[in-house]
Amino acid sequence: MASEPSLLVASALSGNRRAAGRLISMIEDDAPQVEQIMRAVYPHTGNAYLIGFTGPPGAGKSTLVDELVRVVRTSDQSVGIIAVDPNSPFTGGAILGDRIRMMRHATDPQVFIRSMGARGHLGGLAVAAQNASFLFDAMGMSLVLVETVGVGQSELEIAEMADTTVVVMPPGFGDGVQAIKAGIMEIADIFVVNKADDPMASKAVSDIRDVLRMDLEHREWTQPIVRTIATSAEGLEDLWMRIQQHRGYLEQSGELRRRRRARIEREIMRIAERKLLERVLQPRTESQEFETMLDLALEHRMDPYAVADHIVSFRDGR
Amino acid sequence: MASEPSLLVASALSGNRRAAGRLISMIEDDAPQVEQIMRAVYPHTGNAYLIGFTGPPGAGKSTLVDELVRVVRTSDQSVGIIAVDPNSPFTGGAILGDRIRMMRHATDPQVFIRSMGARGHLGGLAVAAQNASFLFDAMGMSLVLVETVGVGQSELEIAEMADTTVVVMPPGFGDGVQAIKAGIMEIADIFVVNKADDPMASKAVSDIRDVLRMDLEHREWTQPIVRTIATSAEGLEDLWMRIQQHRGYLEQSGELRRRRRARIEREIMRIAERKLLERVLQPRTESQEFETMLDLALEHRMDPYAVADHIVSFRDGR
Repeated sequence: MASEPSLLVASALSGNRRAAGRLISMIEDDAPQVEQIMRAVYPHTGNAYLIGFTGPPGAGKSTLVDELVRVVRTSDQSVGIIAVDPNSPFTGGAILGDRIRMMRHATDPQVFIRSMGARGHLGGLAVAAQNASFLFDAMGMSLVLVETVGVGQSELEIAEMADTTVVVMPPGFGDGVQAIKAGIMEIADIFVVNKADDPMASKAVSDIRDVLRMDLEHREWTQPIVRTIATSAEGLEDLWMRIQQHRGYLEQSGELRRRRRARIEREIMRIAERKLLERVLQPRTESQEFETMLDLALEHRMDPYAVADHIVSFRDGR
Repeated sequence: MASEPSLLVASALSGNRRAAGRLISMIEDDAPQVEQIMRAVYPHTGNAYLIGFTGPPGAGKSTLVDELVRVVRTSDQSVGIIAVDPNSPFTGGAILGDRIRMMRHATDPQVFIRSMGARGHLGGLAVAAQNASFLFDAMGMSLVLVETVGVGQSELEIAEMADTTVVVMPPGFGDGVQAIKAGIMEIADIFVVNKADDPMASKAVSDIRDVLRMDLEHREWTQPIVRTIATSAEGLEDLWMRIQQHRGYLEQSGELRRRRRARIEREIMRIAERKLLERVLQPRTESQEFETMLDLALEHRMDPYAVADHIVSFRDGR
């Protein structure tokens, strides 16, 4: 049967895009075969460089990524793009955007684009993006670009996947320093102020510079601020140079190994957590005793912490 | 010491707003005292009715919620508002918006507003909102309104907290039916089309009606579509009536008890998961053996699933 996971993986790794597409759908749906798929994929990974792009809606990330791909392709590297939109149930943008972008790179067999939305179900979007990036890596893509909207909870998780994280800001991103203080400093390796021909762009650059100056943490890497006009492909060569500089810094300082070790540790912990919950916690909740405790909690005769203590301690004999 | 958690809880429950504010800050920071706080709070909960408001940015949710509070306050019920913005690192809106809204209800001691942002750290925003709602409940608020932006992952979790979920849509919410298909049907008990004086509002109402018609699931509750103009307080009485109708339906059908039982079950599972991870998984990762396996995984000589299997099975002897 052609849909047997290991056959699909073999087919994808030999360059079959339809097989790759089906695998990513299974990854996105969190299908039961995902463990088998990823175990077959994983030994072939480790060669791709991962670049994350994040920033508020309207910053022009998609255009920027597409134009960067053009720059990268002049050096003949193959590129995988994963566009993540956690808010897609409302926007429906993922599907539409995907088709438009597919057409833009349609003639280039070395560019593979896939977009992912939250699909209305909870959890797992960052995991799905991570697994898709492993697949692209195993397929021999030398670069994987992961693009996401905003820096909410799931977006930060996605930024954690990347070797280099680029934060893209539109020229007028609100009330200045206040707007970029929290969260961003931790994840940005490179700042981009896109739409740099806008009158507000210089203000944006100096606002970011002010925030960087306020940062008391000692950093070996000084985060550069790159101005781009993605729609006319300006500044993209500069951005690409900065990304390569950052990669050089990561490699020489040993930071790349540290980041990737932290990434694989998070990946292992995530898998271990899930296995632990499935093997230990779930069976314990399938009991009459648990149902009784639920009723007691609902009637406020037991608090949720007491019930939790009870089910966690079942096997401990406590 | 005045900051002792149980004293703070006693103080908050007797009406001290500063104590409540400090407790919510501890909840938001996921302080070590949270378990102690929530165990003291929980026995006093169960009287508040929780209403969730969600929808895309720009739908006018804050104004709508504020105007609804005015309607509710004519019946002298006390109201707690929790405004959640998972994207606040970028917008900085939570802090600013909070102050403006505080002023709007400043003269009313029966209205308590608190906003929460992602604060740049991962996880826990839905948990913090849930715990804050328990605190408001224990403080004797008869209504708790939880307001959040979008319907990404964390927003859906927040919607799950509510007894009644109101989905607020702006008049021109994009490409019609496509834009509201995924995710929304599952969570909306009541639809609001706000800014109903906009020429696009009728289109929005008929788009939502089309989606409701396509829904094949049998529902005992037919989701109403309410038109409002929050800025001039129009339609708010109607919305409040619909919310009360939905509450009546939930109470009479037994669905309220089912929802609250599911909510307490999720709460218990969340606590149990965390306890299990802290007690079982974390100690196992603090070993030289785990460090060695991490290196093997990094060098692709072991896959993450194999490492995870190994650490999960430590105590099982498998």
